[in-house]
Amino acid sequence: MTRWKDEFDFERFLRRMRFADRSIPIGIGDDAAVLPISQKHLLFTTDMMVENVHFRRASCVPEWLAHKLLARSVSDIAAMGGTPTSYLVSLALASNLTDDFVPRFYRGLKRAQEQMHVQLVGGDISRSPGGLLFSSLALLGEIKSAPLRRRGARLHDTVWITGTLGRSGAALELLEAGRVRVDTKTRKFASIEVSGRARERALKEIMKAHFLPEPRLAVAQWLAERNIATAAIDLSDGLSTDLNRLCAASNVGAVIHLQDLPISDSVSCWARHPVACALHGGDDYELLFTAPPGADDVLKKFCGPVSLHRIGEVVSRRRGVCIEAQGKLRRLDPGGFNHLRNR
Amino acid sequence: MTRWKDEFDFERFLRRMRFADRSIPIGIGDDAAVLPISQKHLLFTTDMMVENVHFRRASCVPEWLAHKLLARSVSDIAAMGGTPTSYLVSLALASNLTDDFVPRFYRGLKRAQEQMHVQLVGGDISRSPGGLLFSSLALLGEIKSAPLRRRGARLHDTVWITGTLGRSGAALELLEAGRVRVDTKTRKFASIEVSGRARERALKEIMKAHFLPEPRLAVAQWLAERNIATAAIDLSDGLSTDLNRLCAASNVGAVIHLQDLPISDSVSCWARHPVACALHGGDDYELLFTAPPGADDVLKKFCGPVSLHRIGEVVSRRRGVCIEAQGKLRRLDPGGFNHLRNR
Repeated sequence: MTRWKDEFDFERFLRRMRFADRSIPIGIGDDAAVLPISQKHLLFTTDMMVENVHFRRASCVPEWLAHKLLARSVSDIAAMGGTPTSYLVSLALASNLTDDFVPRFYRGLKRAQEQMHVQLVGGDISRSPGGLLFSSLALLGEIKSAPLRRRGARLHDTVWITGTLGRSGAALELLEAGRVRVDTKTRKFASIEVSGRARERALKEIMKAHFLPEPRLAVAQWLAERNIATAAIDLSDGLSTDLNRLCAASNVGAVIHLQDLPISDSVSCWARHPVACALHGGDDYELLFTAPPGADDVLKKFCGPVSLHRIGEVVSRRRGVCIEAQGKLRRLDPGGFNHLRNR
Repeated sequence: MTRWKDEFDFERFLRRMRFADRSIPIGIGDDAAVLPISQKHLLFTTDMMVENVHFRRASCVPEWLAHKLLARSVSDIAAMGGTPTSYLVSLALASNLTDDFVPRFYRGLKRAQEQMHVQLVGGDISRSPGGLLFSSLALLGEIKSAPLRRRGARLHDTVWITGTLGRSGAALELLEAGRVRVDTKTRKFASIEVSGRARERALKEIMKAHFLPEPRLAVAQWLAERNIATAAIDLSDGLSTDLNRLCAASNVGAVIHLQDLPISDSVSCWARHPVACALHGGDDYELLFTAPPGADDVLKKFCGPVSLHRIGEVVSRRRGVCIEAQGKLRRLDPGGFNHLRNR
């Protein structure tokens, strides 16, 4: 067991975890990492995950926390069409954490960074005297083409999203209601309800989406290289919040169609309010983007690892979002996750 | 008063604070900052400041906290001879903070970034449910020459530091013992002891060194450009800890001489144990470096804004540090600040 609580040799620990990469001239162990750069633009982003704001200890699997912390920032780089490269991670460790937390967190981080092709180059570690766990990650990325931005959506553009909506929100609903419990040691979860095989599969799908999100790097880079998208944002705080953000940044208004929202069957299977999960549930990490009206054919033919769905149109030069259901329009205000507000 | 506790528009707030810089193609307000880069190497570092580990609420002036958080990372870039450029700052805000905390913190950050010639390009903000304040900063820098590293000290090299030692440690001693109190609202501090004018001046000096450290950027760049230093580190955790780190990274052993340590008069004036402050007190943010024996003349002629002091020699190919006082040697083990250990 690693004695991280006292005189913990963090550099040796990371070397032993084989985090080192020979392509980084100077990595962990000096005052700063030294990174080689070429004739591109840099992308630079950061995200925090705070106990009882972004996760609960009862369902906190260290490996999953590490994955999600990294995925959140990678998703930001994806949303701009970039390639993530290297990151720093900071932990403030509560003394009531189990001794295996740090090794399991870094094991999860290593696995996640291999999936997302990024490299840990340093970080910071501290005590957290209040008994809550704090984590923070700063990620660098590169981009050769023009970055996808939040501003840029134009009148008559179409509104698209990748993948499906609401899975993470549905998982959160189940966890918060105590309908599903996670064994953080074995990394298994179980519903307290009697379920069939199909429901178990659906549960697995929404839990995986919540705890191990996959940033939409490939499709975002495909969009950036082809210069198809006019604006983009990743769905971190819920469709209603993030589409309002994109519209505000672009100074436009959009309508989305309820029947076009790709709500996963697994969400309908488990969530009490599937549409609310799809509209307001955070942590989907899908890509929300706009494209010119003529791009429909190209986008519909996209055959990557994830589906693309047209969900609406930019209809106005006045900011705001409406949702259309059975021919009726109503305003869709931001209703997603707010990390300053109590849940 | 900014209502940061609820639906706080962070981007608008930062725009109003005039944090924007036109040289950054895309700054605050998108998923990631986009930075222009040239044919240099990047430096990438991060630091946390956690309440009750790195500072206490009772003496936490928001403007000073912001300054120190930035200075700590800038000092890391300085220690490698680089030029800091842009940074992200993350705050987890306790609900028991006063309403003016956020504007005062960012006001301090703005002033500090102007002093240190760096640019805020984004960040993250969250609640901190446990009632403690967490801050984290990630900083990018550039370097044209070869970076100063911790490894690189060689047998017969001389050991140098910039400025003076122990001021921050002395201030911490006074604060922790309750001998000095800070009025966080007026940013004034007062000793509970009867003092003369000279002692007041000395107090001001050590408090300033503790709360508003000045990273040694100019001298570090001067050293890097002239390729004089063989190894370098910034004094963040105390001379005994950081010199041991440098020696461990370089695989050498060093001796320092007690009578050569530049202990500030202000430290002798206030600290109960001035030598302990100089040896083990953290947060000095002076530069500790080694140089070849022939470099003495050049280094002694250095006339920058800060003095250089030769304090010892590399005497062995075996790791470890000794201190010589009146001809007697004793081991100097790391005894500085440990952010995983209780203070």
